[in-house]
Amino acid sequence: MKRAVVLLSGGLDSYTAAAIARADGFELFALTIRYGQVHLREVEAARAVARALGVKRQREIDVDLAAFGGSALTGDGDIPKDRRLDDERSIPSTYVPARNTILLSLALAWAEVLDARAIVIGVNAVDYSGYPDCRPEFLDAFERLASLGTRAGVEGRPLTVRAPLLRMSKGEIIQCGIELGLDYGLTHSCYDPDGIGRPCGRCDSCRLRARGFAEAGVIDPLVGARQQ
Amino acid sequence: MKRAVVLLSGGLDSYTAAAIARADGFELFALTIRYGQVHLREVEAARAVARALGVKRQREIDVDLAAFGGSALTGDGDIPKDRRLDDERSIPSTYVPARNTILLSLALAWAEVLDARAIVIGVNAVDYSGYPDCRPEFLDAFERLASLGTRAGVEGRPLTVRAPLLRMSKGEIIQCGIELGLDYGLTHSCYDPDGIGRPCGRCDSCRLRARGFAEAGVIDPLVGARQQ
Repeated sequence: MKRAVVLLSGGLDSYTAAAIARADGFELFALTIRYGQVHLREVEAARAVARALGVKRQREIDVDLAAFGGSALTGDGDIPKDRRLDDERSIPSTYVPARNTILLSLALAWAEVLDARAIVIGVNAVDYSGYPDCRPEFLDAFERLASLGTRAGVEGRPLTVRAPLLRMSKGEIIQCGIELGLDYGLTHSCYDPDGIGRPCGRCDSCRLRARGFAEAGVIDPLVGARQQ
Repeated sequence: MKRAVVLLSGGLDSYTAAAIARADGFELFALTIRYGQVHLREVEAARAVARALGVKRQREIDVDLAAFGGSALTGDGDIPKDRRLDDERSIPSTYVPARNTILLSLALAWAEVLDARAIVIGVNAVDYSGYPDCRPEFLDAFERLASLGTRAGVEGRPLTVRAPLLRMSKGEIIQCGIELGLDYGLTHSCYDPDGIGRPCGRCDSCRLRARGFAEAGVIDPLVGARQQ
């Protein structure tokens, strides 16, 4: 069975991307990176999602990106609320410097050891909130780097970066996941949850999620649970 | 003053590369990655080297690559001894999967936060011991990735990867460092030192070092100290 290393964050995008790869016949190896996020609710969600997906193995790796600073997501400044979502020219303060480059690099290391043929990442170039490392040309450049910088690449077994959500809207992602039978109640999206892990509803990530569920015409199970 | 993030390992290559960047007018920010090396003597050497270089700041970051396995350098199998050094087709067991991709990615994150214009890495394509991620085409691919995946790149301030040792032999590197007044007695190269940090003399790294000092016609201060 073909192996894939899946970057699994606990959010709904990576869950859906992983499920698509599983449907495409890959055996999943889930990699969760604790990069200094202030809220670890996301990491707990990743564990629940990994179990639900029936991954072959899950690994969690710590990389303290907070040591560099520069991002509201790792504790440097406040999480912006009620921001305009479609301003593609401005990179928000929740951008974590070089995050996807680092996540893909770590996935690449494990993929080499496992002799996996693919890395799966849930990035999205439509509802992407303005991050430069979510663009298709960035992923192409990483694939090229991977083929040059690894044993497998040198030996003629190139690795592909699969980003199945790249050109889907948030609504389409959710629709796709529901068709695959996913339970989005297991996921966590909020950048700034309260003390017991409930979403704020006002950060970019919460608002993109809400817009996605509205587009898909589905009730978010996290919201549904709260309303009951 | 232009800023550069220098990947500083404690070995003689990264020390020399950093000194060349300093001579080229860069203010140095040294980044040392503890990636699960079995022997931390190297990290102690990096601190001594950073002090000797007068770097503006030094950061140490932990990334547990041993969690992935697959390398003798992170404890998976024995360090090979007395290996033929010029066999470029075989990748040795001391190769750490995707290591330079990961190191460069972490340097990229800090470079973004510092608004540094360069990353400096002491890789070498001549006496490189067969690692795929020490080749010029790999570094070019990383530079392209960096320009696409970062805020600075998007905003038209590209970052360069400087690998001043790329086409130098080990002897030329040492000659260059001595002209710059470097004290190689501060460095550590061995993959398999004894309990008090003394080099084994038989691993690839020790043998490349010995060959380099012989080529440069200079006595290695680490060996000189041992013989006194």
